[in-house]
Amino acid sequence: MSDGVAAKKHKAESSQALERTDWKKRKAEVKEAKKQRKEAKLIKQLEKQKQLEAAEGTKEERGHNNKVGRAYTVSVALPGSVLDNAQSAELRTYLAGQIARACVVFGVDEIVVFDEQGEDVKSVEGEFKGVGKKGQACIQLARILQYLECPQYLRKWFFPKHPDLQYAGLLNPLDSPHHMRIDEESDYREGIVLDRPAKLGKGSLVNCGMRKEVRIDKQLQSGLRVTVRLTKTQNQESKICKGVVVAPHVPRTEGGLYWGYSVRLASCLSSVFTESPYKDGYDLTIGTSERGSSLDQATLSPFKHLLVVFGGLQGLEASVDTDQNLDETDPSVLFDLYLNTCPDQGSRTIRTEEAILISMAGLRPKIKGANDSVTNL
Amino acid sequence: MSDGVAAKKHKAESSQALERTDWKKRKAEVKEAKKQRKEAKLIKQLEKQKQLEAAEGTKEERGHNNKVGRAYTVSVALPGSVLDNAQSAELRTYLAGQIARACVVFGVDEIVVFDEQGEDVKSVEGEFKGVGKKGQACIQLARILQYLECPQYLRKWFFPKHPDLQYAGLLNPLDSPHHMRIDEESDYREGIVLDRPAKLGKGSLVNCGMRKEVRIDKQLQSGLRVTVRLTKTQNQESKICKGVVVAPHVPRTEGGLYWGYSVRLASCLSSVFTESPYKDGYDLTIGTSERGSSLDQATLSPFKHLLVVFGGLQGLEASVDTDQNLDETDPSVLFDLYLNTCPDQGSRTIRTEEAILISMAGLRPKIKGANDSVTNL
Ligand SMILES: C[S@@+](CC[C@H](N)C(=O)[O-])C[C@H]1O[C@@H](n2cnc3c(N)ncnc32)[C@H](O)[C@@H]1O
Ligand SMILES: C[S@@+](CC[C@H](N)C(=O)[O-])C[C@H]1O[C@@H](n2cnc3c(N)ncnc32)[C@H](O)[C@@H]1O
Repeated sequence: MSDGVAAKKHKAESSQALERTDWKKRKAEVKEAKKQRKEAKLIKQLEKQKQLEAAEGTKEERGHNNKVGRAYTVSVALPGSVLDNAQSAELRTYLAGQIARACVVFGVDEIVVFDEQGEDVKSVEGEFKGVGKKGQACIQLARILQYLECPQYLRKWFFPKHPDLQYAGLLNPLDSPHHMRIDEESDYREGIVLDRPAKLGKGSLVNCGMRKEVRIDKQLQSGLRVTVRLTKTQNQESKICKGVVVAPHVPRTEGGLYWGYSVRLASCLSSVFTESPYKDGYDLTIGTSERGSSLDQATLSPFKHLLVVFGGLQGLEASVDTDQNLDETDPSVLFDLYLNTCPDQGSRTIRTEEAILISMAGLRPKIKGANDSVTNL
Repeated sequence: MSDGVAAKKHKAESSQALERTDWKKRKAEVKEAKKQRKEAKLIKQLEKQKQLEAAEGTKEERGHNNKVGRAYTVSVALPGSVLDNAQSAELRTYLAGQIARACVVFGVDEIVVFDEQGEDVKSVEGEFKGVGKKGQACIQLARILQYLECPQYLRKWFFPKHPDLQYAGLLNPLDSPHHMRIDEESDYREGIVLDRPAKLGKGSLVNCGMRKEVRIDKQLQSGLRVTVRLTKTQNQESKICKGVVVAPHVPRTEGGLYWGYSVRLASCLSSVFTESPYKDGYDLTIGTSERGSSLDQATLSPFKHLLVVFGGLQGLEASVDTDQNLDETDPSVLFDLYLNTCPDQGSRTIRTEEAILISMAGLRPKIKGANDSVTNL
């Protein structure tokens, strides 16, 4: 099918609606039947190809690359109010960037930004677009985190000009594995579904930041961000690459790759726990505080979904105090572990952005240990 | 003796030189002899008092406070060129502040800023004042580090206005134990010797950032920065406190307190090792690199003076390459341990300021372990 045919199809439909004469209707019906047979055939072919590619994909991971998937996830939560500690708009932006980088360095899969002011504002739940009235710091932090996580070649689509991103030029790049350079080879790539009339029976075209566009296996809404597994053997002659859409977790669970983080807004500390995107929630939770017990004596039990929570300028006590859903005043009871990750600190106070790097560096071998023991079972 | 007497003494000397008459000379000699007897007596009294106070001081530490001194030191070295990675003058300053805070959080005693350009410029050795021609980044970094280390109440004396400190207002405070608030009680304090005519036989007056000035045991050059051990029992009625000048290491070695860092400039990487302020140099050296061996398997042997070295944008390889004193090209041979302190890092590259926090957080329990075993011997 050429682009011309697709264009004609549109035309035929509109004229049909306008004229309604019998002979035109009959002709259209014949055409439609023919089209449907052709489509059915193409879909069959596509499915067969998909199966082949999927089998190949599995081979790649298990065999050639010899990479073992990572089953567990690590989430980090912190109050958006940390931005209010910065002394200028530039430093506010820079601070958000420090948080993003700290999380990427330690392979964090989810960052939860919670509102320390704690009123259970339903409007910031789930997907958020644009600037809300409350929790400006939360939304700005979330926006900058999302901006940084997005591969550079996709940013022009997903991040139109916005005052929150005015100083984005100052941000240090994350340089994570899913931020691919144009000629870099990779099993997976992030892409955007292009706004092109999809050819019947063929999947959509996706821009994956490569020299060629990628034809995926599905017809998807244009503008959607997708994770694509590129087919191992590509036709070098072809003007287009081939790929399969996969769930965003697949590069991690099957490829063992770190694939960036998702960002979630929570309207208060308790929502961090209750609105977990994981079916059974977090199965290991750690609170951090200079008043916690020493990290050195702590052992982590095996987990599927770890959550590590940081406080703001006033510590987690402040977040607990303002949370109307929590009767407690002692934050330690909310967590499986409440840890001092920097015993004998030489400064009276450790800033949240520092505490993330310090805590995750201290937890890293213990996280690894907890999960190695699972693998060894 | 009143201030008037000291002033007269000066006058007498100058008139003696001008007139040279015998009777004036004789009178002066008599006066001088009298003065010397009086001085000797006062010095004796002062010494007796010093002994008493010293005994008392020791009692304080061993008994009341029950603090154990720390015998070992930790030094961190990094190239000044890291500042050149910052995107604005403000962020350059902020970056220097991040480095200072990272070192303070982990109780680093010495920060060595080395010149990665590596020409063995003798002019930046040892004490440095003012801006040199080369290594602008090194000197700026060193200056900001020194500025931050200096207790706030002493800065107006030691850090006059300087372009390197233009954005000092953006720096986060170190909040280390030696940055005392005005009414805070402490065994030790940093101070500046005041420019007051010292009373004969009495020690100089020192501003230690307290409501009262401190009379120390020695007559010292005004403008000198000193570490003072405050006498335990002060006369509440007196307008002046009493204290004893001690070496800057005493709060650490006897009080077990973290007492800030010293700053040293090194003209190249090799000078970091060869110009150590410790008599026998560093007895444990660690280089850091993503190409090092995993921190997780490393054990630190007991040490007196640990040195941890970080590279700049191009890693330690670049510093080794440009150093004319080094024939090696492989940095790992320069160190006792060459460590990857962040195995499985999720970003392709970790920035030096991040690497300091991450590495020191990873090393912290091992440093403690190495020195606990010494204590237990
Ligand atoms: C500025 S600190 C909070 C200080 C606050 N005054 C308090 O007492 O908790 C911000 C956050 O950094 C983290 N943090 C600071 N020091 C820590 C330590 N030694 N161990 C673990 N987390 C720490 C905690 O998450 C804390 O809520
Ligand atoms: C920007 S990195 C240097 C990167 C440079 N491309 C290289 O390959 O070494 C700056 C410094 O951070 C430290 N660093 C970065 N990653 C590290 C890691 N995984 N382990 C230990 N130190 C690291 C090292 O001191 C390094 O010289």
